[in-house]
Amino acid sequence: MTPLRHVFFVSDGTGITAETLGHTLLTQFEAVEFKTTTLPFVNSPEKARSTLDFINFIAKDAGLRPLIFSTTVNDEVRAILRTADALFLDLFDLMIHTIELELGVASTHAQGRAHGMANQQKYNSRISAMNYAMEHDDGQSTRDLARADVILIAPSRCGKTPTSLYLALQHGLFATNFPLTEDDLEQQKLPSSLRGLENKCFGLTSEPERLSQIRSERRPGSKYASLAQCAYELRQAEQLYRRAQVPFLNSANMSIEEIATMVMQEKNLRKPTF
Amino acid sequence: MTPLRHVFFVSDGTGITAETLGHTLLTQFEAVEFKTTTLPFVNSPEKARSTLDFINFIAKDAGLRPLIFSTTVNDEVRAILRTADALFLDLFDLMIHTIELELGVASTHAQGRAHGMANQQKYNSRISAMNYAMEHDDGQSTRDLARADVILIAPSRCGKTPTSLYLALQHGLFATNFPLTEDDLEQQKLPSSLRGLENKCFGLTSEPERLSQIRSERRPGSKYASLAQCAYELRQAEQLYRRAQVPFLNSANMSIEEIATMVMQEKNLRKPTF
Repeated sequence: MTPLRHVFFVSDGTGITAETLGHTLLTQFEAVEFKTTTLPFVNSPEKARSTLDFINFIAKDAGLRPLIFSTTVNDEVRAILRTADALFLDLFDLMIHTIELELGVASTHAQGRAHGMANQQKYNSRISAMNYAMEHDDGQSTRDLARADVILIAPSRCGKTPTSLYLALQHGLFATNFPLTEDDLEQQKLPSSLRGLENKCFGLTSEPERLSQIRSERRPGSKYASLAQCAYELRQAEQLYRRAQVPFLNSANMSIEEIATMVMQEKNLRKPTF
Repeated sequence: MTPLRHVFFVSDGTGITAETLGHTLLTQFEAVEFKTTTLPFVNSPEKARSTLDFINFIAKDAGLRPLIFSTTVNDEVRAILRTADALFLDLFDLMIHTIELELGVASTHAQGRAHGMANQQKYNSRISAMNYAMEHDDGQSTRDLARADVILIAPSRCGKTPTSLYLALQHGLFATNFPLTEDDLEQQKLPSSLRGLENKCFGLTSEPERLSQIRSERRPGSKYASLAQCAYELRQAEQLYRRAQVPFLNSANMSIEEIATMVMQEKNLRKPTF
């Protein structure tokens, strides 16, 4: 067994970028055990010095150099962190100069921009999207459905709700979702409130085994959770999607992020990021 | 005015890491106008070649080299993309070799790991956290409150709901929230269902002007949205937090990500990422 390796995600903002890139790289080393610590808001030389002391303390204690994934914009902060007894990898160190050369413009060195309140209007619209997703979850409201960017439809527990909320929170999309009831599945018709909105619909399916397992956590031993019922609903749902020409995907082995990405690709929903 | 610059976020997975790091870097160039396109699931040489054709087509049309932020694990895919008529910046190119040397281990070259279903158990607990946050939003349910990792309290529209959902979806935390009613504020007492749970509470405040503006969008001209009412509620809430020794922050100029980060820091809620 390899010894535990300490990893620090250091940022002058939330640390989300440092975590994301560090995590992506570390998933490539399955044999190594990592202990990660996020150190956000390191936005002054004083905080950089106490961060440095902390990391050096851990390094000495562990007897193995930690890894630091940093996204600190301030040159002075970075210069201090760079002296740590650690492998120091900073996104700006590695990429910003190349981009400056390419664009022919100097970077602004503005801190905390990546996940701060850079754009009030965009922020407000994201909150509106989230409120919309909450109010319309699981077919609760049919008011203002024409405003939806996308309407997810599926049998119960195929991932509609988390995907809708993720699309709203992360991408500012007006995402809503409708359950497919026994009647809908039996009659092979979309819920009546969705008539005329077929072009906004996207369907989800799953594998019977996986769906049965998820439903069993909620209602163990029920007909609802039985393999036969799950298989029936999924078969009917898929047939309904084909009949109504609604694009769909099987969410059984996909993360929320993957489902959301596929939905946005298929429906061409990605909003500009600048 | 500088001409528009095309930017591509290319990945063999969802593209979230490429977007996050590219976006973080590009926020440092306010003077440049970017047009971004995310190209996810480029996970085979065939897809890499059609991606290459597409980017080269855009490059030729624009007359300016695009920027490519890539997080593609496959060496062959990367070799193809690297030939694009663009500035090619790949996270693995820049960092993986250094990390391999430091760890003394070769990377596994596994695709789509960063935002896929790497860990079923962790994934299920994230979904449970999200269901919990939905069911407990805005004090709807007092069942199972002892299970909460954190209980956000605040007057209406200070950011409780989006922050709870973000904590659940992104961090798998059992986050819930309670509104502070006129009675709570008047009597300077926490909602009775929170008694004994003070140590899980975290308070939010805002600025009267900002709160009034947000409330006005929902109920224009109401007492609820008036500056006087907002100022009163915020003053009383702050006093209540101090009295009940509940940590709090002013969310007026903070993004959801920043609020969530501060809450996790203060309550020491960050879960291990591996």
